[in-house]
Amino acid sequence: MKTSIIIIGNEILNGRTRDANGHYLSKWLKENGFQNLQMVVVPDHHEAVQEALTSAWNKSDLVITTGGLGPTLDDMTKDILANFFNAKIKECENARKLTTQHYQRIKRTWDPELNHYHMIPEGFEAIENPAGLAPGLLKSKDNKLLLCAPGVPRELQAMAGQLWTKILKKYFPQNNSQRIESITLRTKGIHEEKMFSMMPELWDEMKKYGSPSSLPQIMGIDLVITIDSDKNQHKEQYLEQFKAYIDKSLLAPYVWQWGDEPLPSYVLKKAREKSLTIGLAESCTGGLLGKQITDVPGCSDVFIGSVVSYHNNAKISLLGVPSETLEHYGAVSSETAQAMAKGVFNILHCNLGFSITGIAGPGGGTEEKPVGTVHMAVATKNGTIEKPFKFQFYGERTLLRSRFAHQALFLILEAIEEY
Amino acid sequence: MKTSIIIIGNEILNGRTRDANGHYLSKWLKENGFQNLQMVVVPDHHEAVQEALTSAWNKSDLVITTGGLGPTLDDMTKDILANFFNAKIKECENARKLTTQHYQRIKRTWDPELNHYHMIPEGFEAIENPAGLAPGLLKSKDNKLLLCAPGVPRELQAMAGQLWTKILKKYFPQNNSQRIESITLRTKGIHEEKMFSMMPELWDEMKKYGSPSSLPQIMGIDLVITIDSDKNQHKEQYLEQFKAYIDKSLLAPYVWQWGDEPLPSYVLKKAREKSLTIGLAESCTGGLLGKQITDVPGCSDVFIGSVVSYHNNAKISLLGVPSETLEHYGAVSSETAQAMAKGVFNILHCNLGFSITGIAGPGGGTEEKPVGTVHMAVATKNGTIEKPFKFQFYGERTLLRSRFAHQALFLILEAIEEY
Repeated sequence: MKTSIIIIGNEILNGRTRDANGHYLSKWLKENGFQNLQMVVVPDHHEAVQEALTSAWNKSDLVITTGGLGPTLDDMTKDILANFFNAKIKECENARKLTTQHYQRIKRTWDPELNHYHMIPEGFEAIENPAGLAPGLLKSKDNKLLLCAPGVPRELQAMAGQLWTKILKKYFPQNNSQRIESITLRTKGIHEEKMFSMMPELWDEMKKYGSPSSLPQIMGIDLVITIDSDKNQHKEQYLEQFKAYIDKSLLAPYVWQWGDEPLPSYVLKKAREKSLTIGLAESCTGGLLGKQITDVPGCSDVFIGSVVSYHNNAKISLLGVPSETLEHYGAVSSETAQAMAKGVFNILHCNLGFSITGIAGPGGGTEEKPVGTVHMAVATKNGTIEKPFKFQFYGERTLLRSRFAHQALFLILEAIEEY
Repeated sequence: MKTSIIIIGNEILNGRTRDANGHYLSKWLKENGFQNLQMVVVPDHHEAVQEALTSAWNKSDLVITTGGLGPTLDDMTKDILANFFNAKIKECENARKLTTQHYQRIKRTWDPELNHYHMIPEGFEAIENPAGLAPGLLKSKDNKLLLCAPGVPRELQAMAGQLWTKILKKYFPQNNSQRIESITLRTKGIHEEKMFSMMPELWDEMKKYGSPSSLPQIMGIDLVITIDSDKNQHKEQYLEQFKAYIDKSLLAPYVWQWGDEPLPSYVLKKAREKSLTIGLAESCTGGLLGKQITDVPGCSDVFIGSVVSYHNNAKISLLGVPSETLEHYGAVSSETAQAMAKGVFNILHCNLGFSITGIAGPGGGTEEKPVGTVHMAVATKNGTIEKPFKFQFYGERTLLRSRFAHQALFLILEAIEEY
């Protein structure tokens, strides 16, 4: 089942807004066994949307549009759709009913004059909007389906997650059980070229099971094999064979996960398996590491807290880092990292105290400690600091902070494994 | 100058990777005065790229491709480009020279057998990659320009920022000073429909100065007027006139910024103007608020630190919240929020101590305190707690946490203004 996505919005093309719907829909389509043929972002402009719609409708079984269903005058998707299907915009009883309900949900009264949400192209169905006010739209023709959602990500996501999944099953019953399966292997500490030069047969080995791809991540390379849809049932067997091959290969020491789990939730899972609790002492990451861990629901059995000691005074008052250590070695040093880890371990009574202090830039670098220098430390039982670590990364502030946090999670993972 | 962007990559279409290049390039094009006509994401597949290239090349002055220049076998952009321009892949002396330099930069030796980076389509130029190994590509034909970068965001960003900007000036000298200007007004506390129903003439008023758009953000509505490029020089005068109109209007109390500055850096700027320092006590946001503030370079004169007391024990040990307060009122209560704010104010010796404690879900909600409940408090000099705040938001965990942090920044802004 081939799908095209049309994302409508000037604000995306001029860089004001970063589109979130394309990524959400790509994942959602994969989960529902639909192939995402292409995504296109077009302006709020009659001709451009018309052209994208024509191309998408010709080559796809399912077309999804996002954006342009709101109340303001630049919201013109309904007009364009009416024109494309040669239909008139008419009052729709169900759209009226749904809109009334949407307003009741947020305890407001709907005034049809304000937004014309009850007016939709003839031959279209209105769809409930579980997280907003404007109804979505559906049009079925020639065994093809068009689904339209507002551009606000939470509205699109609620509509797709709660309603469209069922709609797809109804309109494409033959697509059942065609979920796209894949095998994922995540590595760290090796770059792409080295991987494929030390194992020249790796690509062909992957090809035995499906379509291979090699995806550089912020730290490390993911290898993904997408299994051909008619061979879905062999996934377990393929995984076992490929795993046996990798386990005996030169790549084995670089593998940190078989699977698709994001690093923070993987770290939490591993800590939970050993009933370990974690406390953080952050400086340059400013809360990013705690944020990434608490992005994961249900983290509170493992994660106690994070002391973000951005200013040196905070390192002293919150973590008990001796001011002499800061004066003598500097805030970005192995000694300070160790004192921070020890401090958070003591104050939070956790099993693993972890610290990170570095220079994220753009300012603050010196010849001796350039931007990108970062020190980390782990404190465990007995209050001893078992390992100080120093790394040097490159890039601008946002990238550096992501790398610092990523590296920190890798170290926490190692500390959990060694515990 | 019209531009089309072609983003090549299966990993984006199947939802594995979230594209970052489209958004970066959209902003970069705007800054350089180029109109972003459309963006399309296509698979690593000959026909699909070919089709996108044909369409883009016909309607644009500038075409940009990202992805498919790497070393592995799914990197096929060069073959497709050679085919499109009817050229052969040949050895290029400059590509060889650049690649050698790229490897020297990271202290490795290049083996041409591993990646064929020196082989490019005839009639193309190789472009330096300031942050990676594979050279970029350039092709000029019929007064049109094609620029190709690898898909790794840091490589594309370095190439565009450091080299392409100059290249555009050279190839499109007539485009000088055509920077696209706009007027932005950011509001909070009012929804789109109310805004336009209470000021029915607002849209037409905006139209006087250019193309209006109304952009719902996570909290609040941004109004943006994009000024027609031949009227760029009137920007200051337009801004003054529109500002005079808004200042007298019903919308005035809802405006929090004239301009485009992200909320965290705007808050820091306002705090800096009054020489105020800020300390945070976070719970449900887990570090997100500190992360957002420290995303801004040079925040250390204002931001002292954040105590992420996720577990109740951390609230007690780090912030001195009385255990009776936690037992009696619960962690998510106005009393606990006030004790947290007071605690961080005392321990960090900052001018403003700010706390946030809530239920981000999906678990942990009760009938009395459903998911989305959040309490905040501000502590200032004299140790007094001036304001406790309670809010109820809706959505899933990620959205709720973003809203909590956004609302917190609005309150910090108000506290700074009232200081």
